[in-house]
Amino acid sequence: MYEPLRGVYNILSTPFHPDGSLDEASLRRLVEATIAAGVDGITVLGVAGEAQKLTDAERRRVVEVVMETVGGRVPVIVGTSRDGTDATIAASREAEAMGAAGVMVAPPTFLQPGPALTEHFRRLGEAIGIPIVLQDYPPVNGVTLSPRAMAELVEAVPAIATIKLEDTPTPQRIAQTLKLTGDRVTIVGGLGGMYLLDELRAGASGTMTGFAYPEVLVAIWRAWQAGDRAGAAERYYRALPALVFEGQPRIGLAIRKETQRRRGLIAHATVRHPGPVLDEQTLEALTEVLEWTGLPAAYDRVGAQSSAS
Amino acid sequence: MYEPLRGVYNILSTPFHPDGSLDEASLRRLVEATIAAGVDGITVLGVAGEAQKLTDAERRRVVEVVMETVGGRVPVIVGTSRDGTDATIAASREAEAMGAAGVMVAPPTFLQPGPALTEHFRRLGEAIGIPIVLQDYPPVNGVTLSPRAMAELVEAVPAIATIKLEDTPTPQRIAQTLKLTGDRVTIVGGLGGMYLLDELRAGASGTMTGFAYPEVLVAIWRAWQAGDRAGAAERYYRALPALVFEGQPRIGLAIRKETQRRRGLIAHATVRHPGPVLDEQTLEALTEVLEWTGLPAAYDRVGAQSSAS
Amino acid sequence: MYEPLRGVYNILSTPFHPDGSLDEASLRRLVEATIAAGVDGITVLGVAGEAQKLTDAERRRVVEVVMETVGGRVPVIVGTSRDGTDATIAASREAEAMGAAGVMVAPPTFLQPGPALTEHFRRLGEAIGIPIVLQDYPPVNGVTLSPRAMAELVEAVPAIATIKLEDTPTPQRIAQTLKLTGDRVTIVGGLGGMYLLDELRAGASGTMTGFAYPEVLVAIWRAWQAGDRAGAAERYYRALPALVFEGQPRIGLAIRKETQRRRGLIAHATVRHPGPVLDEQTLEALTEVLEWTGLPAAYDRVGAQSSAS
Amino acid sequence: MYEPLRGVYNILSTPFHPDGSLDEASLRRLVEATIAAGVDGITVLGVAGEAQKLTDAERRRVVEVVMETVGGRVPVIVGTSRDGTDATIAASREAEAMGAAGVMVAPPTFLQPGPALTEHFRRLGEAIGIPIVLQDYPPVNGVTLSPRAMAELVEAVPAIATIKLEDTPTPQRIAQTLKLTGDRVTIVGGLGGMYLLDELRAGASGTMTGFAYPEVLVAIWRAWQAGDRAGAAERYYRALPALVFEGQPRIGLAIRKETQRRRGLIAHATVRHPGPVLDEQTLEALTEVLEWTGLPAAYDRVGAQSSAS
Repeated sequence: MYEPLRGVYNILSTPFHPDGSLDEASLRRLVEATIAAGVDGITVLGVAGEAQKLTDAERRRVVEVVMETVGGRVPVIVGTSRDGTDATIAASREAEAMGAAGVMVAPPTFLQPGPALTEHFRRLGEAIGIPIVLQDYPPVNGVTLSPRAMAELVEAVPAIATIKLEDTPTPQRIAQTLKLTGDRVTIVGGLGGMYLLDELRAGASGTMTGFAYPEVLVAIWRAWQAGDRAGAAERYYRALPALVFEGQPRIGLAIRKETQRRRGLIAHATVRHPGPVLDEQTLEALTEVLEWTGLPAAYDRVGAQSSAS
Repeated sequence: MYEPLRGVYNILSTPFHPDGSLDEASLRRLVEATIAAGVDGITVLGVAGEAQKLTDAERRRVVEVVMETVGGRVPVIVGTSRDGTDATIAASREAEAMGAAGVMVAPPTFLQPGPALTEHFRRLGEAIGIPIVLQDYPPVNGVTLSPRAMAELVEAVPAIATIKLEDTPTPQRIAQTLKLTGDRVTIVGGLGGMYLLDELRAGASGTMTGFAYPEVLVAIWRAWQAGDRAGAAERYYRALPALVFEGQPRIGLAIRKETQRRRGLIAHATVRHPGPVLDEQTLEALTEVLEWTGLPAAYDRVGAQSSAS
Repeated sequence: MYEPLRGVYNILSTPFHPDGSLDEASLRRLVEATIAAGVDGITVLGVAGEAQKLTDAERRRVVEVVMETVGGRVPVIVGTSRDGTDATIAASREAEAMGAAGVMVAPPTFLQPGPALTEHFRRLGEAIGIPIVLQDYPPVNGVTLSPRAMAELVEAVPAIATIKLEDTPTPQRIAQTLKLTGDRVTIVGGLGGMYLLDELRAGASGTMTGFAYPEVLVAIWRAWQAGDRAGAAERYYRALPALVFEGQPRIGLAIRKETQRRRGLIAHATVRHPGPVLDEQTLEALTEVLEWTGLPAAYDRVGAQSSAS
Repeated sequence: MYEPLRGVYNILSTPFHPDGSLDEASLRRLVEATIAAGVDGITVLGVAGEAQKLTDAERRRVVEVVMETVGGRVPVIVGTSRDGTDATIAASREAEAMGAAGVMVAPPTFLQPGPALTEHFRRLGEAIGIPIVLQDYPPVNGVTLSPRAMAELVEAVPAIATIKLEDTPTPQRIAQTLKLTGDRVTIVGGLGGMYLLDELRAGASGTMTGFAYPEVLVAIWRAWQAGDRAGAAERYYRALPALVFEGQPRIGLAIRKETQRRRGLIAHATVRHPGPVLDEQTLEALTEVLEWTGLPAAYDRVGAQSSAS
């Protein structure tokens, strides 16, 4: 009934002007570049989209702009996590009405697994007609979901079609969870793609994450799907320095936006306060890392690489 | 420049209908009863007001209803904590425009003390013309503020006029913090008034908290202010069984709303999901506790006690 | 097979000289006074016994001294929590060999419920011939046990005979857990007896905790057991100011030791570093609280009250 | 007065027999191989040495065996973290008496920065004659140290000669902390060397960590020190797949021990319970990763590579 997701879903950055206001022109440009990179779908209003720092009105506007720009070319998943069930439902219904293909929802802050958490997702599932992507990412809400806890949520809530699993060690936890859920759901990785190859080895059906070079994730995924494990590994290991560098906890988003700025995808690297600020040395290190991996040269025109791969 | 708060500020419950929608009639009734109880001010959209489970639109409506009902009889503080600085500023400016006498703001989720937290409050203070009540309550955001961290925020941000200190042991921490801040700010307690007497002994200038019998907090505070320590102690210790019972972590809000319902202050005890649900035994224990403390009899007409005390 | 515990088990403070070394004379005196208070058992090396700040050799010595002094008059439970399973087993076997009636064990630091935690307790249970008291107290190890998680541990580990449940709200959680475990185990409260009456209402079979006036806990328990609910309530509510004051998180142990010193039960109130230090005001407040509750007068000769009740 | 550490200090695994008992023969072999790899020093009883799962007697034995085997060829640092100050001092004095060149100490569990934490280190520093390596690793004790908090500890405690900084993002935090401490101390990285190159860029004076191929860390460090940045980068990026794979949170130690077993450095990959267990797929992935990086071939004889580099 609910189609599980597969492939590379890119978590979109939310671009801001230097004064912190929404930069709609950059947002449109970023959407175009992301589609050109060959992604299977787009996710807006994730943690990496700074959703938690937007007002309800700004969130609505981001979805509007993205929906208009995408124009149905790829499915769009909307993050609608809230601390209350009614508010989560309201945001999710609104997303559905605006054309979302699914919603991505993490447990409310500090609401550990148990009957109340299950009820939260059950009510949400019954209130909407699109699938839920269950997000497992402890740093954002203080909630740890064991493989068994995720399997029980999946069993209780038919609308959960996909799990975005981001608590380390992701490969081993993906394998453990799939043993319990079977193919009722798909599991995709995240964490900026840092463990993507091993997540695929463990049975992941793709990844839902941000990375300033989505075409790299696409190329890895396509090679993997084509049965070309060596090609997937080669692409992954070649990009690993950049994946690790951008994947640094707490400052990763600032590195990603700076890289997107350098690529011309967005006008400013602004991260809304409170957020990471990069020092000179990190900016220089970024240059070295990208040079080392050959990313600026090989991928200067967005999308070129993925179509060539 | 910014007037520190003093006295009993009642954190208002947000009443809901059984279906979870806002019960405006009960909200108005609760405001009237709270003013009749003799409070020095009212605080809306606190954690105990389930602010984190409301949409932006619902929050706005709560403030509107409360402002209309209060009609300037007492100052109203509005909770405007958000995870982003811009969103906190937007909510705070809106509250100011609607007549708030101040805003109550806790640190963003997991943003520990340091330059970024200071900057959060500094920007907020510069963006509004009303004072900030700094809220210290780790369970809601995972942030622990040492006395020194609070003193440094106070020093850096002139707009912080009052600290609502709720991390235990509150009396000792109030004393330690006042040693560092001097009389630049006032400190008020919270935690449902459970440690109120000792907080006053430690130098607190009142309390900002919810309790189903605000007139009891008022009576304790007035006795204390009048130099009647024995009277304050007698009132506090007499109410202690109810303060401890309602002050139970995690289920306290459900006990408070049930008590308010029994008193006729609100129509339904509904707590929005996810939230505590009381079992039969807790409901019976509540009856016993209230009987023991004589609260239902002594305080059956709201406000009668405080004017008589 | 394993006899569940019932009644009042007093968690013993570990007395130190001002230089931090073990004060064996005070330890013997404290044991005598505790037995005289009418307790059903004694627990050593709990968190409140500062077990985590002792060396293995010191822990051994504390158990030796207590065993010698008790001389079989009451059962002695020994805290043997360690972060490793082998080390927990080694400490528990040693305790058993020294005459312990049971061991009290909390989950290893940060080891959340799951197969590994179950295995920890299963191995321990198979390695010893005395029952396990499962300790549920998140502040000490960062582990939260839901009622279901506790019930599953109980089902998997026959040696768990009793749960010491200390995560709030204790009364409601005791009732929820007993619904799942039936009478396979007993559950006792803790937290300094602060919620003792409500814990008994919820089905607790006693309490295992420290409190500077164990005879008060004994009197409440005996009244309750005798079916005298009003008598139990009267004793509990009369003592509540002291229970709440001593029950303050983080500084409670220092208050307890100071009270024990004032009663002549131990020579020095020394708490090992790092540990709470009381300011003048808290010391004065303690005097007022004890006077208010009548504890110094009513209980000046230890044991007098419990035998009279 | 206290000489700050520099270079590669290898955190030694503690080898066990399949039944969990200490495998002294493997321990001696591992020490020999580690010295042959060219390390500047050895650290025993770290978290990666499973120190927290050993008894005091076992810890003593590990130090004895290591000291005997090392025989003064390289300095040995001993982990002596305990939750109490007296116990930390006792363990540290014992380590000093046994020939330790320094002690590695993390804050006691949940003791956040403040006067009590400072006092803990101050007393330790005054009680011993060897330097302290301050360990910053939140997952093990729940304590987060900001750069300023570390700088204040360094200022207050002359015995702190080195910081082992392991809270991400390590490169940026190393730079921030060095700005505050100047060259009063050195800072070394950890985390299995996963961010080693960027830590060096940020000013780190080496690394103190475990990795199954310590000669790789040595080669990176020596190239860096010789001013050969390209050589350091080449070695680091070539090893990155293995560094990332072994660096996986929670299961990294099991991967390391399995790798050490495959290399013949230890007889069994046993990790003491509770500890990670690897599934088949992770074992296979390990084989692929090592093949990809060429580590088994290039480094089959321990020490060969570092002497060649």
